[in-house]
Amino acid sequence: MRRWLLPEAIEDALPAEAWHVETLRRRLLDEFHRHGYEYVIPPLLEYVESLLTGSGRDLDLRTFKLVDQLSGRTMGVRADIAPQVARIDAHLLNRKGVTRLCYCGSVLHTLPANLTATRQPLQIGAELYGHAGGGADAEILHLLARALQLSGVAATRIDLGHVGVFRALAAGAGFAGEHLDDLFGMMQAKDLPGLRELLADVAEPCRAGLLALPALYGDVTVLARAAATLPALPEITAALDELRALAATLGDLPISFDLGDLRGLHYHSGVVFAAYCAGYPGAIALGGRYDKVGKAFGRDRAATGFSLDLRELAQLAPNGLPRRAIVAPQATAGEAAALRQAVAELRAGGEIVINALPGDTPADWHEAGCDRQLVWRDGRWQTAELK
Amino acid sequence: MRRWLLPEAIEDALPAEAWHVETLRRRLLDEFHRHGYEYVIPPLLEYVESLLTGSGRDLDLRTFKLVDQLSGRTMGVRADIAPQVARIDAHLLNRKGVTRLCYCGSVLHTLPANLTATRQPLQIGAELYGHAGGGADAEILHLLARALQLSGVAATRIDLGHVGVFRALAAGAGFAGEHLDDLFGMMQAKDLPGLRELLADVAEPCRAGLLALPALYGDVTVLARAAATLPALPEITAALDELRALAATLGDLPISFDLGDLRGLHYHSGVVFAAYCAGYPGAIALGGRYDKVGKAFGRDRAATGFSLDLRELAQLAPNGLPRRAIVAPQATAGEAAALRQAVAELRAGGEIVINALPGDTPADWHEAGCDRQLVWRDGRWQTAELK
Repeated sequence: MRRWLLPEAIEDALPAEAWHVETLRRRLLDEFHRHGYEYVIPPLLEYVESLLTGSGRDLDLRTFKLVDQLSGRTMGVRADIAPQVARIDAHLLNRKGVTRLCYCGSVLHTLPANLTATRQPLQIGAELYGHAGGGADAEILHLLARALQLSGVAATRIDLGHVGVFRALAAGAGFAGEHLDDLFGMMQAKDLPGLRELLADVAEPCRAGLLALPALYGDVTVLARAAATLPALPEITAALDELRALAATLGDLPISFDLGDLRGLHYHSGVVFAAYCAGYPGAIALGGRYDKVGKAFGRDRAATGFSLDLRELAQLAPNGLPRRAIVAPQATAGEAAALRQAVAELRAGGEIVINALPGDTPADWHEAGCDRQLVWRDGRWQTAELK
Repeated sequence: MRRWLLPEAIEDALPAEAWHVETLRRRLLDEFHRHGYEYVIPPLLEYVESLLTGSGRDLDLRTFKLVDQLSGRTMGVRADIAPQVARIDAHLLNRKGVTRLCYCGSVLHTLPANLTATRQPLQIGAELYGHAGGGADAEILHLLARALQLSGVAATRIDLGHVGVFRALAAGAGFAGEHLDDLFGMMQAKDLPGLRELLADVAEPCRAGLLALPALYGDVTVLARAAATLPALPEITAALDELRALAATLGDLPISFDLGDLRGLHYHSGVVFAAYCAGYPGAIALGGRYDKVGKAFGRDRAATGFSLDLRELAQLAPNGLPRRAIVAPQATAGEAAALRQAVAELRAGGEIVINALPGDTPADWHEAGCDRQLVWRDGRWQTAELK
């Protein structure tokens, strides 16, 4: 058997990709940092009760389970970092005011989300806790747009939706528990024939409202269409007002609407959004409100944030110039001190300098990315082209 | 139950620690990069056949196992990254010449190594492939010393050992398979009474040699003592010569010797080393030769490298100044453009600027680490002390 084959939908990142990912990682974390978002590192493993608190069946099925040899209890490998960060806000930092946190780490999924998806996304995100108003959503959406712009992958479209619209219609139609999950799944898939069948016995106006949702997408006129089409339930009116007010503060972003988009995970509670960019068919980043997750941890805190897969983003983002290095030869004793000095100066200036080892050939140096060499000339070490 | 409690020996890194870890991570990866070590990101999961290739029972027991729902095969969550990087060198890069690679990522252990150990070390390391000579070991040891120095945790002592000495004595004494593992374990623990019992029926001179090993530590005179005490097997003579020659090229490092130190994992094959620093009882970094791992992947490649737990290092390393931020108020429409400009300039200069949200109080800003605020004065935005 070929021992070096990896499981399906699990990949190494080799040098060129890995350094590109690292560069983007730093650029985004630095930007989050300068906006006051504090970096945290939650663990890969938690007890499942903690890891899946406030989330749905979907996340449970995606989560690898393990037995803890110290306690005999079931642990999970995280499939999403956002609930972990909500736990940190609710219980460890325990601040009264607004708390801004960010993170970057790998998560694992038992099964890939689709045919081309990875089972190990590198999730990076930013979260704002303790502010329920639209100002927090606007700050998060601007930060997301800025992160994409800094990666060279500007958002071409950011769709806003609101889980409250769907929830009000589903509650009005009497869906709960597993039936609600089924409805949620069909709405996510925009499976109209399936929806018609599932809703056959549901009373109007919620039936018509649920069937209308998948088509309620487009520019700001969607909000007026929704107000005219959907039943005037108070939650729906409030959700549409909230979206209208939020959009008014986002004039500089390419905002559109999609009221049937429930792509976010089950824990979302209010405004949700999905960012799109050129050259990529799906959403590059997802986010929104999840005000109820803190409550599940015993402390009611408003929450909004976004996350994306940094390796996916790196595939779209323009990469820098290829890595170019200088090779430093083995020096005779008399020239060694001057060579060490020259190498240290080049490295301090950001150059990559590789020390030659006995037996190396110029072909090896070219293979390692060297295009220059240090040569002893006119009584000092100088860089020259490597032939 | 308290849903937010983490499993034993699993910890979050909260903001101050997390940013300190991130700062060190960048400093070390940048230094590796400037020395020509290319960054790679191997996955968290592999099939166990691949993950445990060339390693021993020890790593197997430490590795969490999972079933792959796509193939039905057993996967492991990596407990060590070095064998993954050896796989990448052997099969994916497949270069003829010397290859330098580095990495940084979390690993998981089923059980903590000792009472104070974590089950999720953040392993960072550098590896050099394709050069069997002492020049490669010397380069790796200098890089390790440099990494510790850059972290503000200079090595007070670097112990060199050689697995070949132990292996020759164990083979001479007839140990193999599980018995060899037992002997290895006792030697690692320097368990002299246990060793005496285990070696009771072993013939001289190997018996006396194995019993002498745990005391063969100290300065360079250890090598002469070893030559006088240990049986003159060719492998032992070669190992002592190798250590002597290597130490001669490391005059600037605080080198000592420990021939009974087998702290490295089972896959080590030649020179091994352990670095110590002030304020920490155990070894802060481990490394050495593991020339046989590449062969297990079907390609014989010399290999040497080191790794350490970055979170452990961060606890010893001096931290920077506490994070200090500026709060930007909500501006009236007329001043908003100038405020955005002022905020962008401060951030570009490396400052953290937090946007005030409606309802924020000065106490909230202090809690978030703000010590200054932007104020509109004399027709422009200026920073002033936050009272």
